[in-house]
Amino acid sequence: MGSTERIRNVAKRVAKWARAGHQMVVVPSAMSGETNRLLGLAKELAPAKAAAAYNRELDMLAATGEQASSALLAIALQAEGMESVSYAGWQVPVKTNSAYTKARIESIDDARVRADLAAGKVVVITGFQGVDEDDNITTLGRGGSDTSAVAVAAAMKAHECLIYTDVDGVYTTDPRVVPEARRLQTVSFEEMLEMASLGSKVLQIRSVEFAGKYKVPLRVLSSFTPWDIDIHEEAKSGTLITFEEDEKMEQAVVSGIAFNRDEAKISVLGVPDKPGIAYQILGAVADANIEVDVIIQNISKDGKTDFSFTVHRNDYARTVELLTSKVVPALGAQEVVGDTKICKVSIVGIGMRSHVGVAAKMFRHLSEEGINIQMISTSEIKTSVVIDEKYMELAVRALHRAFDLDQPAS
Amino acid sequence: MGSTERIRNVAKRVAKWARAGHQMVVVPSAMSGETNRLLGLAKELAPAKAAAAYNRELDMLAATGEQASSALLAIALQAEGMESVSYAGWQVPVKTNSAYTKARIESIDDARVRADLAAGKVVVITGFQGVDEDDNITTLGRGGSDTSAVAVAAAMKAHECLIYTDVDGVYTTDPRVVPEARRLQTVSFEEMLEMASLGSKVLQIRSVEFAGKYKVPLRVLSSFTPWDIDIHEEAKSGTLITFEEDEKMEQAVVSGIAFNRDEAKISVLGVPDKPGIAYQILGAVADANIEVDVIIQNISKDGKTDFSFTVHRNDYARTVELLTSKVVPALGAQEVVGDTKICKVSIVGIGMRSHVGVAAKMFRHLSEEGINIQMISTSEIKTSVVIDEKYMELAVRALHRAFDLDQPAS
Repeated sequence: MGSTERIRNVAKRVAKWARAGHQMVVVPSAMSGETNRLLGLAKELAPAKAAAAYNRELDMLAATGEQASSALLAIALQAEGMESVSYAGWQVPVKTNSAYTKARIESIDDARVRADLAAGKVVVITGFQGVDEDDNITTLGRGGSDTSAVAVAAAMKAHECLIYTDVDGVYTTDPRVVPEARRLQTVSFEEMLEMASLGSKVLQIRSVEFAGKYKVPLRVLSSFTPWDIDIHEEAKSGTLITFEEDEKMEQAVVSGIAFNRDEAKISVLGVPDKPGIAYQILGAVADANIEVDVIIQNISKDGKTDFSFTVHRNDYARTVELLTSKVVPALGAQEVVGDTKICKVSIVGIGMRSHVGVAAKMFRHLSEEGINIQMISTSEIKTSVVIDEKYMELAVRALHRAFDLDQPAS
Repeated sequence: MGSTERIRNVAKRVAKWARAGHQMVVVPSAMSGETNRLLGLAKELAPAKAAAAYNRELDMLAATGEQASSALLAIALQAEGMESVSYAGWQVPVKTNSAYTKARIESIDDARVRADLAAGKVVVITGFQGVDEDDNITTLGRGGSDTSAVAVAAAMKAHECLIYTDVDGVYTTDPRVVPEARRLQTVSFEEMLEMASLGSKVLQIRSVEFAGKYKVPLRVLSSFTPWDIDIHEEAKSGTLITFEEDEKMEQAVVSGIAFNRDEAKISVLGVPDKPGIAYQILGAVADANIEVDVIIQNISKDGKTDFSFTVHRNDYARTVELLTSKVVPALGAQEVVGDTKICKVSIVGIGMRSHVGVAAKMFRHLSEEGINIQMISTSEIKTSVVIDEKYMELAVRALHRAFDLDQPAS
């Protein structure tokens, strides 16, 4: 929510749903820029070494942003003639563990909220925050408002959880790369997880995981849609993330093309092929808090093998340094080589589970475009390839066309 | 507290006190301008008719200002190397009644705070706010941070409650009117009450009443004093408000000269002198929610009397209209006259109790300056006169000199 004008529009939209007979619980984020403003003030004052005590105060500080926007939304709802009440996380309460700045929700008490709903009120609950068992305020980390909304929907056993974002749904791929990209009317939970983690940054992945765990039907839709559009039209807009494998899921083999160019490739060459080398290499990387994505180990030749993986580009130099100085000598490996100019392109689809030849079709189309595949990684519902960064758009467009994603779902 | 620079200075000052061996509880106000900014947003969205539900949300909103500044102060204290923790009102808890936007503190639980102090932490508690018995956030109204500080000091049985303000203490009168005005080293609680209500707007009167009720020694001192001045010097700076009538109190007959020009005088002339007229006049005024200050009833002549009182200038026209249209006809009084160009000047001093002739001395000096006295009102520790507004500065200066207030206390 940005200005008071935006808050007023949210209130009108919520009032429309409520007047149509729905019991409404609303979980707003902070006004835009507010969380950054607050954390900026903290940074100006920040202690040299950040202890847990510091993170506790950061949460105390950041939580005020959602408390303010929630109170303002309740006021705007009252101005619309709706009875409304706002609650901070601790008032519900939304109980979390004590991991300040990245807390996990443990339970939500729905009694107070249910009583208000029964009394005809619209209930506003602060997103992003909760309270631990010692009454300390906690926050869920960036994007936590989505997670809060899903958690509240799960606790209330809501009919549907509507997430209003700055996009109007989940697309077959990024429309900036493929203008023919189509909005998906439904997408399965598993596909959504792959799409989110692979770069279709529509929803925080934690909120999707949460929705999956509690089977909360989740609809992603646009906050820019005029508040006064027909409610039946709005109810069908956006993309519904589902958890039931109905027959419809069987039809589309591939739902979307995900991609990112945030990663870099690193290979350790000439590694003696004996038990434990994966652990020796990746254990050292993990100990340095570096996250690894695609991992490939080639077949052995002459008792030696090559071991490759990708990391975030920001971690590239540090990882190469670590491997060169410590791991290669310890392993008796040959050398470390790497490449930052790569990208990862994935086809995602729950239908791949039961369709053979989907990966082969992907490889064929890339080959027809003259694109060399450097690494391959597969799972039940996605196939990813690492290729030269310069071919990214070409690959995405070719695959989008090859899997008929520009055609309306039949 | 204004900028992060100001917050850092507060932290350094608190750290200085703590390092000198004091257990410290700090009650900050919101960053300057923040409460107005938040309430301004609410006003933009405000419902047509403000219900109790609206006031609840206003408190929810406004309380975020102090929560943010408290967290920032705790962070700044940590940056200074102090262990520190901040608590919102509900976390202590500071229990209040449910009168949103003007709640009264009912109790403060000191257990959590004491445990932190014993563990060597500086405790920061949000000012201005509390929580009612149903876990709703409440605020104490404007200036409520002072009241919070005093209440916390009372609950903790603090050695002293230091209130840092934008003035460096309580003066014998306003230095803008009398350059020779002197800072009082001590002032009695009763004098402070009179000074505050008569216009020396140093502290919220509620906080002084609270201090009196719980006998919390209260020191008013300047937040503009450099944080690194010698701690013994700072401990003696400002003005200490005391509750014990020690011998020192006996010495100064008059402690200060208060004045204001916010009032207007109204007289009902030719009122039949019979029982109940004061009630008939002032009852009607009180029913209209108009506050009355000085009240004078002249002696009766020919069975008629004149009845005069002062009200705030903003209420003048409304009061005259009310009296003329309703009260004068009902009473059979003659007419209503009034004057907005008046001021009230008071001498305040606990020593007046045991000294005769203090009021007479006041009247003599005003007479010597050719100032006509329109109304007189006295109490045990103050004597107020209503005079023509144009003589205000002259009267204040003459009285300040007459009672030797420009001389250091002996």
